Amino acid sequence: MRYHKIPNETIRRLPIYLRGLTLLSQQGLINISSSKLADSVNVNHWQIRKDFSYFGDFGKRGVGYNIETLTRRIKKILNLDAVHRAALVGVGNLGSALLAYPGFKMYGFEIAVAFDNDPAKIGTKVNNVVVESISKLSTLAKRQVDLGIIAVPEQAAQDVADALVRVGIKGILNFAPRRINVPKKIKVITIDIATDLARLPYYIPST
Amino acid sequence: MRYHKIPNETIRRLPIYLRGLTLLSQQGLINISSSKLADSVNVNHWQIRKDFSYFGDFGKRGVGYNIETLTRRIKKILNLDAVHRAALVGVGNLGSALLAYPGFKMYGFEIAVAFDNDPAKIGTKVNNVVVESISKLSTLAKRQVDLGIIAVPEQAAQDVADALVRVGIKGILNFAPRRINVPKKIKVITIDIATDLARLPYYIPST
Repeated sequence: MRYHKIPNETIRRLPIYLRGLTLLSQQGLINISSSKLADSVNVNHWQIRKDFSYFGDFGKRGVGYNIETLTRRIKKILNLDAVHRAALVGVGNLGSALLAYPGFKMYGFEIAVAFDNDPAKIGTKVNNVVVESISKLSTLAKRQVDLGIIAVPEQAAQDVADALVRVGIKGILNFAPRRINVPKKIKVITIDIATDLARLPYYIPST
Repeated sequence: MRYHKIPNETIRRLPIYLRGLTLLSQQGLINISSSKLADSVNVNHWQIRKDFSYFGDFGKRGVGYNIETLTRRIKKILNLDAVHRAALVGVGNLGSALLAYPGFKMYGFEIAVAFDNDPAKIGTKVNNVVVESISKLSTLAKRQVDLGIIAVPEQAAQDVADALVRVGIKGILNFAPRRINVPKKIKVITIDIATDLARLPYYIPST
């Protein structure tokens, strides 16, 4: 199910709300006001109310939002109900960090397969995932993996993306600091850590 | 110089525009229309025009924006004119990946110092930065570092943040998947890779 009218910027914030709600629920809370949620996720409360208004008004005055209902709704919108299996390409420092990263599970993600081209790495296990030769990437087509994660050097990123598209991957999380070109139906999210760091000085008084 | 009326969401996009402009300028372009820029950075052209309107209308009808002027303006707003020196705490897989990451330079960042608590790592060099003992973190106060990068395990993140605040760090880029508490005047940007991955299924047709 897709809600076509929801802006991309709101979609970007939904996982942040989801993480906040999960933490609040673990603390034993049942309901939450938009201003309390705002505090815990660092988003303005008016922005939260506006974002939630895209998928129906179900907060109650004086009570706030029911955490369980809201969590279920956001997961449904994000299409997170099913478990998603991802293939990681590139098991260098970044790739190894991603394999060890505990945060993916919260959203139903599992890095199920990992590839590298370094003979010294092939066959080794990183966090219970056996590293396979990149020459086996074509086997992905039969392995129920729908997401790809690119953690290879910049100059190899486009070739890897092409190969992922050929085996039928539908979405790509790209960590290489460059734009990759794929057919329109494939969604690519590029994460450039430097663009986040570059926001910091704005908020810092000059010395 | 700070432009107080610019929304945080616009500030978040400015580094993305900056990266796009840098790449376009490297291709030899002098001017760029908002729709061409939109294509290259994956942001709607109306959003770009709205964002740019916060710092004055200087696009020319039929010509577009001058890349050099726009680049200079964005760098000034983001306070990127000066070189920023950052201290990295935690030289595990993620920390090593950050030390090797070429993207920081584009924005005038340098990871100048690195700390870890593993005796096997202390004294080694990663990308020309010598790893120092975390017990030396207090020396930062005198070393002209204004940003901290936290790449330690979740349970150590708050202690590291407290230590960074004590030595006078003004901004923190946090990779630990948890909220860290600091005084209001310190800006923290937390990067949770999983929240980016969690957006992908929204754009992917169900199988």
